[in-house]
Amino acid sequence: MQKYFLSDDDFLNKTITSDDSFHIKTVMRSKIGDLIVVSNQVKSYIAKITDLTSIVKFEIVEEKVGNTELPFFLTLFQGYPKSDKLDDIIKHTTELGVTYIYPTIMARSVFKLDDKKKDAKLERFNKIAKEAAEQSGRIIIPVVKDILNLKSIDFSLYEYKILCYEESAKQGEASNLSRIIKLIKPNSNVCFLVGPEGGISDNEVDFLYKKGFIKCALGPRILRTEVASLYVLSAISYALELSHD
Amino acid sequence: MQKYFLSDDDFLNKTITSDDSFHIKTVMRSKIGDLIVVSNQVKSYIAKITDLTSIVKFEIVEEKVGNTELPFFLTLFQGYPKSDKLDDIIKHTTELGVTYIYPTIMARSVFKLDDKKKDAKLERFNKIAKEAAEQSGRIIIPVVKDILNLKSIDFSLYEYKILCYEESAKQGEASNLSRIIKLIKPNSNVCFLVGPEGGISDNEVDFLYKKGFIKCALGPRILRTEVASLYVLSAISYALELSHD
Repeated sequence: MQKYFLSDDDFLNKTITSDDSFHIKTVMRSKIGDLIVVSNQVKSYIAKITDLTSIVKFEIVEEKVGNTELPFFLTLFQGYPKSDKLDDIIKHTTELGVTYIYPTIMARSVFKLDDKKKDAKLERFNKIAKEAAEQSGRIIIPVVKDILNLKSIDFSLYEYKILCYEESAKQGEASNLSRIIKLIKPNSNVCFLVGPEGGISDNEVDFLYKKGFIKCALGPRILRTEVASLYVLSAISYALELSHD
Repeated sequence: MQKYFLSDDDFLNKTITSDDSFHIKTVMRSKIGDLIVVSNQVKSYIAKITDLTSIVKFEIVEEKVGNTELPFFLTLFQGYPKSDKLDDIIKHTTELGVTYIYPTIMARSVFKLDDKKKDAKLERFNKIAKEAAEQSGRIIIPVVKDILNLKSIDFSLYEYKILCYEESAKQGEASNLSRIIKLIKPNSNVCFLVGPEGGISDNEVDFLYKKGFIKCALGPRILRTEVASLYVLSAISYALELSHD
């Protein structure tokens, strides 16, 4: 069943007046009586379509049980990569449970921030996150909050800070990631940082180390920037969401 | 250091005569004395470039220690996806340690196999795997062996068979993947199958179940076909390649 995140008004009125009504009518070719999932970002409900003539109307059938959220808040600081890689990173990390994403301009990012285009970029990134959240059955929509320069970020609110660092792998480091994952408490704030294509400069590594980041290897192979975040999220899901009897 | 896989002749002659010589001279703009990593798919060596005038010549400096291979053979049967998603799947699963890949035509694959184009496709896929293996520091190059129809595949040589199945997640299954990962013995043959975009048909699920596949959930969220394989490989790396003191 396709999921739709509704505004508070739509949720209260049992209507769908956003772009999603186009998706329901034209893309999914829904009929009256078809089941969908609607969410107010607190709970999800199975709903039945009752009207399609002008605006879409529905009635709630039952609450949808089953949690699809990680037990803590996970923020990705993603070194701004080349071309449109960020689109896929937002899409895929949303599917894997990220809570917040900050595209982060780092020394080796090729991207230069144009303040005029920032709002349009953020709007597009958040649209990608919403669609991926609907497709993957998330309860909340992750937020791409802002595009920031690394050195301007306040990291003090995060209790655990993971630095994905390929030099650690070369030096044989292999226990920090699992140590951190075991320590994470429910509802805590955790962040992880992945460098852009050229990696993280020595100066940035020093800066992040002083901010309390722990250098973590992601296995013995060198991963591209668009794969590193997926490794961390998959490892967290495997460690915390699958049972290990 | 950039890695290059050499033919047996090149390895014996301490030369690089393949397309890689173009990469060394023109892309990397290497100079005499620069260090590279060369591999014969058994061992990797740090080597120094000694000549660039016509063909590239090198001398071995030292053996490169450190294993970057999983301790068993891991085959991906990937339901043939739409457009050029397979390129990224080959690239990313190579980075994460896969051994063999079979693009697999399943009931809901949109792709139709054209025997005339098959060889060209396989050649391109294997070029992608070689480049990703070099970039990620693999010791071997994974092989995209053939494009096969699901029902024609002999699965009998695999000791462990993982079926990535989203319906399992919906039913709350959460322990099969970690159970299998714990059972895997060194040098064993393990395979995992990921469906195409539309998922795996009921008939195919029955077929695979009878072939000994175990249905495994990959966390509570619904993953796209191009993310499911990365989840499995990241989980295996996390479980077996990182230490858990």
